[in-house]
Amino acid sequence: MAQQYDLAIVGGACAGLAAATYAARRALKTVVLTKDIGGQIATTPTVENYPAIAMITGPDLASQMYVQALEWGAEVRVGTEVSEFTKNGERDFTVSLRDGTSISAKAILLAYGKTPRSLDVPGEWEYAGKGVSYCVTCDAPLFRKKVAAVVGGGNSAVEGALILARTSEKVYLVHRRDEFRAEQVLIDELKNTPNVELVLSAVSKEVQGDGSKVTHLAVTTPEGERLIEVHGIFVEIGFVVQTELVKGKVELDRLNQVVTNKKMETSEPGIFAAGDITDSPFKQAVISAGEGAAAALTAYAYITGQQAGVDWGK
Amino acid sequence: MAQQYDLAIVGGACAGLAAATYAARRALKTVVLTKDIGGQIATTPTVENYPAIAMITGPDLASQMYVQALEWGAEVRVGTEVSEFTKNGERDFTVSLRDGTSISAKAILLAYGKTPRSLDVPGEWEYAGKGVSYCVTCDAPLFRKKVAAVVGGGNSAVEGALILARTSEKVYLVHRRDEFRAEQVLIDELKNTPNVELVLSAVSKEVQGDGSKVTHLAVTTPEGERLIEVHGIFVEIGFVVQTELVKGKVELDRLNQVVTNKKMETSEPGIFAAGDITDSPFKQAVISAGEGAAAALTAYAYITGQQAGVDWGK
Repeated sequence: MAQQYDLAIVGGACAGLAAATYAARRALKTVVLTKDIGGQIATTPTVENYPAIAMITGPDLASQMYVQALEWGAEVRVGTEVSEFTKNGERDFTVSLRDGTSISAKAILLAYGKTPRSLDVPGEWEYAGKGVSYCVTCDAPLFRKKVAAVVGGGNSAVEGALILARTSEKVYLVHRRDEFRAEQVLIDELKNTPNVELVLSAVSKEVQGDGSKVTHLAVTTPEGERLIEVHGIFVEIGFVVQTELVKGKVELDRLNQVVTNKKMETSEPGIFAAGDITDSPFKQAVISAGEGAAAALTAYAYITGQQAGVDWGK
Repeated sequence: MAQQYDLAIVGGACAGLAAATYAARRALKTVVLTKDIGGQIATTPTVENYPAIAMITGPDLASQMYVQALEWGAEVRVGTEVSEFTKNGERDFTVSLRDGTSISAKAILLAYGKTPRSLDVPGEWEYAGKGVSYCVTCDAPLFRKKVAAVVGGGNSAVEGALILARTSEKVYLVHRRDEFRAEQVLIDELKNTPNVELVLSAVSKEVQGDGSKVTHLAVTTPEGERLIEVHGIFVEIGFVVQTELVKGKVELDRLNQVVTNKKMETSEPGIFAAGDITDSPFKQAVISAGEGAAAALTAYAYITGQQAGVDWGK
């Protein structure tokens, strides 16, 4: 018979691990099903905006949340992939794993974040891993003293350009708008970094190569076509939800994000969501952790048949 | 002329300080107006559920958020009380302080939390400070080797009873229901604490004293009236919003909490809210910090005339 849990959390990054701590503290039998620990935050070299922690590496932040969840008694199955889950009735879910086994749970918490968006241009897939990358932190060392382009205009793109600029000869930052949406402190730093060239109002058209590696990024600008000679291209244009698991089960918005209310309930009773997978407007570690905590407390109420929310005493 | 800021944050606890860090990182000229640092969390001896921090005192948690906000360039005016604020137009607020001065700000963030709820029974006000207390952490030492009652059934009441039980001779935990809504780990610990007596399904009716100090708490139970002999009574039945500042300015719910959406916008453009003051269902440090971060990012968008939310790149 399938192993029984109160709460099955899909995803082991900030939202899932914070939820695991909160659920375990409420004495829920809690399992975290996850491929890895930390997700996106584990690819972030330095986190300076997690409240109360002045500076920490992303992997350390994730690791501290992981240890905390374990200490409180949550089970965390690393290297586990969920293939599907079904609701058999109220407080009765079956979760099927890729290894062919399954577990039972009274409630499900979706917390597996997002995956990187692609440029969706010719040559991108052909040269993925041959110069095209979706993770500056992982692959910046490959372009030491070489030339790289970062595509995007948000925090991760600007941060990526700054990281590359330290070790690469030259970095192009290619953005389809003429201004950035990154934090001002990052933009200020960018403008003081001489080996970064901004290529603005530029739409990426094609990744070109010599068959074995990237050689150029073709873009269109208001001044016409431009062919930028590069060794590497970092695509930093945001993330999308993997919808395979959730489509038809819960309401999604037009960006395929899971629609949640402030209690982190989805459209389906017993299925909760927290973190980057949801339609919450900002993607930040502390926001994910806060949502994970709220989702666990709401799930606890669902599992035990109580009303979720503030204890008003009287 | 009044000093000019981009963002005026009212309240210096988890929500307000996290918001200050996020706002300052976006290069907003940010001021935090607050009576104290930390609010409720500063009265909590041990915090074990703030994600990524295994254990910390409440004052240390608040202090680390405070230092972080200062490091990023936020101005924090401790000992400051806001008497009122008015909206003169879009991105134009005046905030009046109790000392008679005022400041200007482009946006306002309400983050001043809640104040303790009272029992609202005869004798309560007469004996406030003479045996009636709203803060176990502050006043537990006064009842060393004496008898105390805690009224309430949530985490703070159960935690309060456990704290008192360490040093007091006996502790009554008086709750109007027959079960607790506190975390299971706390309830388990409570049941293993021999000098705590549970008085359940009991409604507090009157605080009695000898004129200079508390002597009894009168309650009604299913078995009839009961007079409990005590030296101290701790009222731990939740918190209410001070509405003086906000009434008529933003929409409040039936509990007088400020209604917010997931971007932490209130019903009035330019006025944002985060933390315990809002209608979010759970009151937790990490949830307040996450809301503070989100509120600051939405306020940034309002102040700079951008659209708040995810950077979708393309």
